[in-house]
Amino acid sequence: MAEINRQILLAARPQGKLELEHFRLAEAPTPRPGPGEILVRVRLISLDAANRAWMQGATYRSAVEAGQVMAGGGVAEVLESRAPGLAPGDLVFADVGWRDFAVLAADSVQKLPRIEPLSRLLSVFGIAGLTAYFGLLECGRPNPGETLVVSAAAGSVGSIVGQIGKIKGCRVVGVAGGAAKGALLVDELGFDAAVDYKAPDFRRALRAACPQGVDVYFDNVGGDVLETCLFAMNLGGRIACCGAVSQYDGAAPAHGPRGVPGLIVTKRLTLRGFVVTDFDDRREQALADLQAWVDEGRLKVREDIVDGLENTPAALIGLLAGDNVGKRMVRVS
Amino acid sequence: MAEINRQILLAARPQGKLELEHFRLAEAPTPRPGPGEILVRVRLISLDAANRAWMQGATYRSAVEAGQVMAGGGVAEVLESRAPGLAPGDLVFADVGWRDFAVLAADSVQKLPRIEPLSRLLSVFGIAGLTAYFGLLECGRPNPGETLVVSAAAGSVGSIVGQIGKIKGCRVVGVAGGAAKGALLVDELGFDAAVDYKAPDFRRALRAACPQGVDVYFDNVGGDVLETCLFAMNLGGRIACCGAVSQYDGAAPAHGPRGVPGLIVTKRLTLRGFVVTDFDDRREQALADLQAWVDEGRLKVREDIVDGLENTPAALIGLLAGDNVGKRMVRVS
Repeated sequence: MAEINRQILLAARPQGKLELEHFRLAEAPTPRPGPGEILVRVRLISLDAANRAWMQGATYRSAVEAGQVMAGGGVAEVLESRAPGLAPGDLVFADVGWRDFAVLAADSVQKLPRIEPLSRLLSVFGIAGLTAYFGLLECGRPNPGETLVVSAAAGSVGSIVGQIGKIKGCRVVGVAGGAAKGALLVDELGFDAAVDYKAPDFRRALRAACPQGVDVYFDNVGGDVLETCLFAMNLGGRIACCGAVSQYDGAAPAHGPRGVPGLIVTKRLTLRGFVVTDFDDRREQALADLQAWVDEGRLKVREDIVDGLENTPAALIGLLAGDNVGKRMVRVS
Repeated sequence: MAEINRQILLAARPQGKLELEHFRLAEAPTPRPGPGEILVRVRLISLDAANRAWMQGATYRSAVEAGQVMAGGGVAEVLESRAPGLAPGDLVFADVGWRDFAVLAADSVQKLPRIEPLSRLLSVFGIAGLTAYFGLLECGRPNPGETLVVSAAAGSVGSIVGQIGKIKGCRVVGVAGGAAKGALLVDELGFDAAVDYKAPDFRRALRAACPQGVDVYFDNVGGDVLETCLFAMNLGGRIACCGAVSQYDGAAPAHGPRGVPGLIVTKRLTLRGFVVTDFDDRREQALADLQAWVDEGRLKVREDIVDGLENTPAALIGLLAGDNVGKRMVRVS
């Protein structure tokens, strides 16, 4: 195959804010699969705040280094297979990287059902949906009548967390930046209230939106919003620690939130960190629940699809700035 | 009864470090019990780092205000009862306050068995022992072969936590100030290693003492030691949040430890705060276990008894400075 394989490299590890100059578009010949490998055409690249965290150092995966193809999960189609169990036309999820074509070890990919639109495999039936499902239900353990707060509430995970919270009978308050996102959460997704973390009266507004205090906080952002929620938590409250997007795009923060551990003790809080793959053994049940909720119209799917591999860097930079509503991804082919 | 009732008042709420001048000794007539009340003679007053936290504001109890008798748990003997179920000679545990005699609502006290020495009712068979037991086993959930780190390890709770950790098959590392405490932990109480948090190479020494990383951290202190342990935790580690003594004796800290929530997410940590009374329904089993371990010689009891009510302020100030080894209390009568 003589096709050109466009690929986006991390040109330099950012020290401060991520900029376009930290990326470089390069071209290479399309590689050939060896034994146990497959050649895939990338269809959709998932954009996630965690992409930025990978540039800071090892997290739950090794760091992405300067000069490497930028890492990223995505949906791809098998073109050629030298591995049993995978055939041309199959769809897989894998760390495909930001490129047109990739050769992948067959045992590093996950075979996917052919769902239309394909984008659902990255949103509600993909990592976003599963992260929301397991993080809320396993770490947050919400009870009917309790108050759930979720940050980055208009994002891929947050928008699903809040809706599952409603399905489970909670009062749901979303934290998001700006009035437009707030209106979306309340008017379209059925949240009980939304609070703008960029507004000067954020702390008071959050308290006002949670007159009974906060029982469950699903934290996607860390930093000041986490601190505010710590002070608003009720006795026995639970915090699902999913991410810290407020802290990825810049130098590592010099301090954590006030109230740790004092408030954890006196309020008997539980903070639990998780990564979606921790719950792989319960994927099937989760996907069945998510599918049923979507079919019943109780879970609305919001996606934000950017076209063109060359736009992936800008799409990630925008995501870190909170430009997206729902699951952001890039359509490559 | 015409006896004089000495009582120690909180003269002023401290802004910075607690000093003797924040207390005042006063005398009052001994009060008389009304219906449903008992008159008690205070025998032993428990000194706890939490006493200092109560001066900062509401915690799991209301704040102690200037002009009030200083609050404090203790063992007292009933002199006169106007309540069913309690008779002269009975021993009770209650928030007796720092004084010779107290009138208490009968439903605010806990009847105690008559154990000798009485001091055991405040150490291993009292709040210290129960706090260690429930915090470690319920929140820390140690498994055999895991590494347990406990801070304030020579203190009332920490000295018991570490010994229970050994009984449960853990490698146990104690964090305490100074070489003398370290030697006590290893030579007398059977800890595997001790690390001096006051030494300049504390962080490296902790790492060296935990070559397999830290699975369970029992946190009595918060602050820098908590931060150091967060960075040393293994995947899936558990932190039992018991107290934050490093932060009580001064202004409230401006920040929490670095790594919150980032390390909680990537390491899938669970932090759980607790107060011993959360587990009151399982007291009997805990006391039976503690009794058995003491009887078998597997759990050594260290107590630090100061004589005289008038010495209670100095005893608390010393405790906050880490002067004590084991459970500190004041013998009043």
